[in-house]
Amino acid sequence: MLDIDLEFATASAPATVSNVAVGFDILGFSLTGMSDEVTVRRVEEPGVRIVKIEGGQNLPEDPEENTATAGLVAMARARKLSFGLEVTIAKGVPQQSGLGGSAASAVAAVVAASAVMDTPLSLPERFHYALLGEALAAGSPHGDNIAPAMLGGLILVRSMDPFDVMRIPVPHSMGAVVIHPDLSVDVRRARNLLSGEIDLGDFVAQSANLAGFIGGCFRDDRALIGRSLQDLVIEPQRSHLIPGFAAVKAAALGAGALGCSISGAGPAVFAIHDLDVDPEVIKEAMIKAFADADVEATGLISPINGMGGHVIERGPRVKKKSTKASPESA
Amino acid sequence: MLDIDLEFATASAPATVSNVAVGFDILGFSLTGMSDEVTVRRVEEPGVRIVKIEGGQNLPEDPEENTATAGLVAMARARKLSFGLEVTIAKGVPQQSGLGGSAASAVAAVVAASAVMDTPLSLPERFHYALLGEALAAGSPHGDNIAPAMLGGLILVRSMDPFDVMRIPVPHSMGAVVIHPDLSVDVRRARNLLSGEIDLGDFVAQSANLAGFIGGCFRDDRALIGRSLQDLVIEPQRSHLIPGFAAVKAAALGAGALGCSISGAGPAVFAIHDLDVDPEVIKEAMIKAFADADVEATGLISPINGMGGHVIERGPRVKKKSTKASPESA
Repeated sequence: MLDIDLEFATASAPATVSNVAVGFDILGFSLTGMSDEVTVRRVEEPGVRIVKIEGGQNLPEDPEENTATAGLVAMARARKLSFGLEVTIAKGVPQQSGLGGSAASAVAAVVAASAVMDTPLSLPERFHYALLGEALAAGSPHGDNIAPAMLGGLILVRSMDPFDVMRIPVPHSMGAVVIHPDLSVDVRRARNLLSGEIDLGDFVAQSANLAGFIGGCFRDDRALIGRSLQDLVIEPQRSHLIPGFAAVKAAALGAGALGCSISGAGPAVFAIHDLDVDPEVIKEAMIKAFADADVEATGLISPINGMGGHVIERGPRVKKKSTKASPESA
Repeated sequence: MLDIDLEFATASAPATVSNVAVGFDILGFSLTGMSDEVTVRRVEEPGVRIVKIEGGQNLPEDPEENTATAGLVAMARARKLSFGLEVTIAKGVPQQSGLGGSAASAVAAVVAASAVMDTPLSLPERFHYALLGEALAAGSPHGDNIAPAMLGGLILVRSMDPFDVMRIPVPHSMGAVVIHPDLSVDVRRARNLLSGEIDLGDFVAQSANLAGFIGGCFRDDRALIGRSLQDLVIEPQRSHLIPGFAAVKAAALGAGALGCSISGAGPAVFAIHDLDVDPEVIKEAMIKAFADADVEATGLISPINGMGGHVIERGPRVKKKSTKASPESA
């Protein structure tokens, strides 16, 4: 008989666009074609250890400080695991891009870890531990990256405590273009520069846009979605952090996008388009507008209804050295 | 042959609940069982005249100052009508109640007037002229009473300029209880006491409730609607104008209502309930709570998907004296 290694699982979780112009801290959607992958391996020695980080720069190797593993550390303690977890992180989402990189790592880690538990993590547990990791990156977690990275598609976070999320249906003909300029924005700085107060008139107008956007998604009314996709509150306060933003947005709308705004805290910029326009044209127009502002940028064309975090590889693995599987404590 | 009078039409338009806890200035729904009726009669002598006001107190008799007729005056000028309009107003919606009385009058008037035009008013025209009347009452018009009074049901006003409204589907098992305490609130005062600024955290939480409520309506998810029907922004600033409000709300929720808040600027209070509770029980509990605060109150049980403004009587009428119909100018 062959010797069997401890079980391992590799999970992928997507980059995400949060805020989505009308849902600051409460809306986000997943991207397809950009993700983080995390492998979690059961080993005999208890504890959570990071064994390798591929891609990414200056990421903490202390498991309690890394967004991918902070949740696993808490989970291992809460479950009093008698075995250990060795974690390999492969970053595919650019850091500090506004594309939910820390959420992608945190979600991929809990999805992979869940797969190697004797009792998988429930969905509320997966959210709970992923949010612990996200909290390291954002100061306080909002869930608008975690939820779509976990579930895929467009997700509303109605409440953080208790955690209450809802899928918003997206017209299948709609897609996203995401442009990542070669700039970085410190999420905490981007948050700290926001005014703590909103003008009552802006509150009313922004509420109307949010309701119009949600209604347009349910009604499959692309024109209404386009009219509603306007951020009167956050974008005006953050857009100066992104050189060329106004021209990039104008280029996207000029090329036929339904709407365009900042992804998360930026600097990435997203546009939403319908079937009647070629997303390549929008992408090239936005990249050119960044180039005109002396900013290099890359683009991604993605559906909005993509997958959330999921296991891409798992199983016992054949090995030369014999080891004994440690049972998980009850 | 009998002599034929000039054509007349009588229209009814319903009372409305605006704001609806989560949609300040942008959401409203119609009530069934409480309405204003306006009769508009074509006469030879040009001009708009109020011939009678039934019910109501201290309502202006100058057509330019009355919310029912201000829009008709503007319409008669814009259309250069060669005939006149004599208007009879029958108030069924209590004034300064927060139940959209001025909108009901304005909508009933334009619907009746439209019916006696040679070329009926288009829907945008009806909105335009009704909003002119509403502007007299509220200072600036918001449309969240006008739109449901015109269309019936639950309506989102996404934008005032251009006027952009959308019907939100309401689960058929849901209904409303509206309690009208014997108090009056000056709408302009209720508006002036609102802070001009909203805390960023409240903005996020209230946006989440609005999105949850809209999504819950589309999904027919009564539990989500109940969790979302919370006003963190406006109700806390206005509820002190309504003696006993906290107890009335607690009584409604205690009796099984999904949510309870102030109707418009108040003092009326509404509750939303589902099939599983008897609205009579909610109504009596709320009236008792008002009574405990020494406030007399009356209640109305109503569907939410009721009718908007519509003609209830019209036609040429047999009269003794012969008159000739004046053609409307082109």
